[in-house]
Amino acid sequence: MTIDAAVAELHTLLGKRLSRSKSDLDIHGRSESYFPLTPPDAVAYPESAEEVEALVRICAQHGCPVVGWGAGSSLEGHALATQGGVVVDFTRMDKVLQVNAEDMDVVIQPGVTREALNEELRATGLFFPVDPGANASLGGMAMTRASGTTAVRYGTMRDNVRALEVVLADGRRIRTGSRAKKTSAGYDLTGLMVGSEGTLGLVTELTLKLHGQPEAVSAAVCAFPDMEAAVNTVIMTIQMGIPMARIEFVDPNMAKGFNVYSGAGLPEAPHLFVEFHGSEDGMPGDVARFRELAEDMGASGFEWAEKSEDRSALWKMRHSAHYASLALRPGARALVTDICVPISRLAEAVEETRADIAAAPFPGTILGHVGDGNFHASLMFDEEDATEVAAVMDFSRRIVERALRLGGTSTGEHGIGIGKLDYMAAEHGDGWNVMGEIKRALDPQNIMNPGKVVRMN
Amino acid sequence: MTIDAAVAELHTLLGKRLSRSKSDLDIHGRSESYFPLTPPDAVAYPESAEEVEALVRICAQHGCPVVGWGAGSSLEGHALATQGGVVVDFTRMDKVLQVNAEDMDVVIQPGVTREALNEELRATGLFFPVDPGANASLGGMAMTRASGTTAVRYGTMRDNVRALEVVLADGRRIRTGSRAKKTSAGYDLTGLMVGSEGTLGLVTELTLKLHGQPEAVSAAVCAFPDMEAAVNTVIMTIQMGIPMARIEFVDPNMAKGFNVYSGAGLPEAPHLFVEFHGSEDGMPGDVARFRELAEDMGASGFEWAEKSEDRSALWKMRHSAHYASLALRPGARALVTDICVPISRLAEAVEETRADIAAAPFPGTILGHVGDGNFHASLMFDEEDATEVAAVMDFSRRIVERALRLGGTSTGEHGIGIGKLDYMAAEHGDGWNVMGEIKRALDPQNIMNPGKVVRMN
Repeated sequence: MTIDAAVAELHTLLGKRLSRSKSDLDIHGRSESYFPLTPPDAVAYPESAEEVEALVRICAQHGCPVVGWGAGSSLEGHALATQGGVVVDFTRMDKVLQVNAEDMDVVIQPGVTREALNEELRATGLFFPVDPGANASLGGMAMTRASGTTAVRYGTMRDNVRALEVVLADGRRIRTGSRAKKTSAGYDLTGLMVGSEGTLGLVTELTLKLHGQPEAVSAAVCAFPDMEAAVNTVIMTIQMGIPMARIEFVDPNMAKGFNVYSGAGLPEAPHLFVEFHGSEDGMPGDVARFRELAEDMGASGFEWAEKSEDRSALWKMRHSAHYASLALRPGARALVTDICVPISRLAEAVEETRADIAAAPFPGTILGHVGDGNFHASLMFDEEDATEVAAVMDFSRRIVERALRLGGTSTGEHGIGIGKLDYMAAEHGDGWNVMGEIKRALDPQNIMNPGKVVRMN
Repeated sequence: MTIDAAVAELHTLLGKRLSRSKSDLDIHGRSESYFPLTPPDAVAYPESAEEVEALVRICAQHGCPVVGWGAGSSLEGHALATQGGVVVDFTRMDKVLQVNAEDMDVVIQPGVTREALNEELRATGLFFPVDPGANASLGGMAMTRASGTTAVRYGTMRDNVRALEVVLADGRRIRTGSRAKKTSAGYDLTGLMVGSEGTLGLVTELTLKLHGQPEAVSAAVCAFPDMEAAVNTVIMTIQMGIPMARIEFVDPNMAKGFNVYSGAGLPEAPHLFVEFHGSEDGMPGDVARFRELAEDMGASGFEWAEKSEDRSALWKMRHSAHYASLALRPGARALVTDICVPISRLAEAVEETRADIAAAPFPGTILGHVGDGNFHASLMFDEEDATEVAAVMDFSRRIVERALRLGGTSTGEHGIGIGKLDYMAAEHGDGWNVMGEIKRALDPQNIMNPGKVVRMN
């Protein structure tokens, strides 16, 4: 069997760092989401780009699937070895290789997590802003084109990866991009790799852009009389160009979830969670403009978190949304949707989704990165109940259809994995075939994370 | 002959809008740069995406090269039909299709120029910031991943194209991206197309991001005692995070060129041309911080252009750099280089280049978008003098080698075309082969702008 032959050779290459223990396989067969346990045939723990290269060459020779694994925080089953093979766990490639403070960039291995990186950067006055909530690995974040609460200000991984080192399906190791801030030298291979979910290669090194820690930071929570007022506040804030570092919408159900999960004591009303980054001179004006606008729309109960620890508590609550949603129905599974629409269509998208949740046989929450037009509806369903499973899948299809109808995308930041594959044809038309043609050119054997993003035949 | 057969069919398709007149062929065989006249076999003037699609299908059938043409302002010969075939001139596809002010985006045809677009946007309070100097077409700017003076603040075309419609080599018309601000739905085909120089397809529609016209704008010119002081001011300005909308370096030779060409009356010293965009509250602080820093480095002679017409005059002078450089040696040709390096290596790159110009047998100027680490050395050489031609080519090779040695790129914004093709292997290694593999997958006949960006065999 080809996979067995590859695993045997990988064992020779990696020794104990090639694991077949049941517990290891199970850990690497689970996901944060509703997908069934899918253990791989083996888990590899490489420690260098050279080892990754050797590993991929062995797998290529035997036609054995290779699936990258960062922190396991994917929500769409990206890192599940659905066709068997080897999961490559990057935990041991977790070094920060260079901090180039003068150039505001950093060179790292893919297993570095965003929290570890920011810890390392703390004394430099710089930080890496992309924040998907989970303490994801930066390699994984690049591969899913992750973003999160701060994308409205600092962009997504697309905007913050300057260069990559990638091992391709045939074992060639290439560098894409450079440390220069811009280039017109040929196709943007860095951009092609970011968001490719490991289907075109394994990333062994990343050069990331850094940003200056803001001189002044202020965060606040405020409540709105209804969803429309909250969403319209967001739309007007963005359109007026008030520079927001974060602007997050929370629906009444989500507020209730925070209360249940962490005793937040929020009114069960729509909320915005906002953060401002700026200069001592400029920020107060931004804050005042936002506050005036929000109060005109009926906002009340402004709570300002000026101290760093108060802001941490605020965003810790926000980042607990997944578990806070689950707290609304203990024992349930969550299906988390991820549409993103043009901001002019946001109110419509949120309102239709709210009505859809109200009609559903299970509880649901809405929250999201509304400054980008991106929001998540989470549905807490009983995975043992076939009627609920069917209903949640219908809900998921409806919300994606809604996004496409409104000129948006099925996934703003979570990626395709196996969860969104069925929507790719509708979203991209022939463009999806073009993705398949690129995949075929770079991975004709289909060994790099097969079954994800594209279909090969 | 296959090209003739294609041209005959194209004549049936387009009638008078398929031109073979000598003057038309000559106009479309010239470039802004030092390349010899290269007239195509025919020039097509399509008026719709459907016509472009039909045109490409005819060319595909006959294996006839297809080369896109915007405003003819490329500096690297991108739009020259070096293997014959049809130049597709997008002049007649110059409609602004949708201005979505609420979403801060615009949908346009590729022949719209940046000045025409901004004229159209004037009343909306929005603008499109990417400014390469020339009044280029936006289709051409996307295809060369153009940038220019404002990239330090607003990014390049990579950052400002949200979605595209593209006709591929086999005539399929695809949409890449959407009007959503972000997506994780598969490979970033928009990013792959931007900068592909027409080698993967012809763009028939672009969705571009817009930005709010700044509340307050201020621009200034100041002189420095030496190049090091000017360059170090830039480096420190960027590292301190002072938000610059433009920060342009001008060497003493370039200042002289401006004096000769437009009677600028500048001292023959290094200068910075700067512009600030901000709020009425925040901008004065930014300006003061920059001024203090620059004066600490010896800057003098600050001239502030507060009025819109004074700023226009300032940037008109800056944008005349090409002609002002040529004015230093009437009748000469200019070779314009375009390296970009990490900003920590900028001083070294500029100083070595200055010394190289000083030793050259022809005059040269340095100016550039130094906030991004990108600058241009222009060499005014006699194209009839073989010694000078050889010397200018050696200079060009040395400056690219310098960029690569310092961790940079051969071209920050002008692109590859035919002028930089010889440097691609050194810059990208196997990555260049990967670009060729993608090209082969999407254009196996090599009809889309053949001979540019990649080598096919």
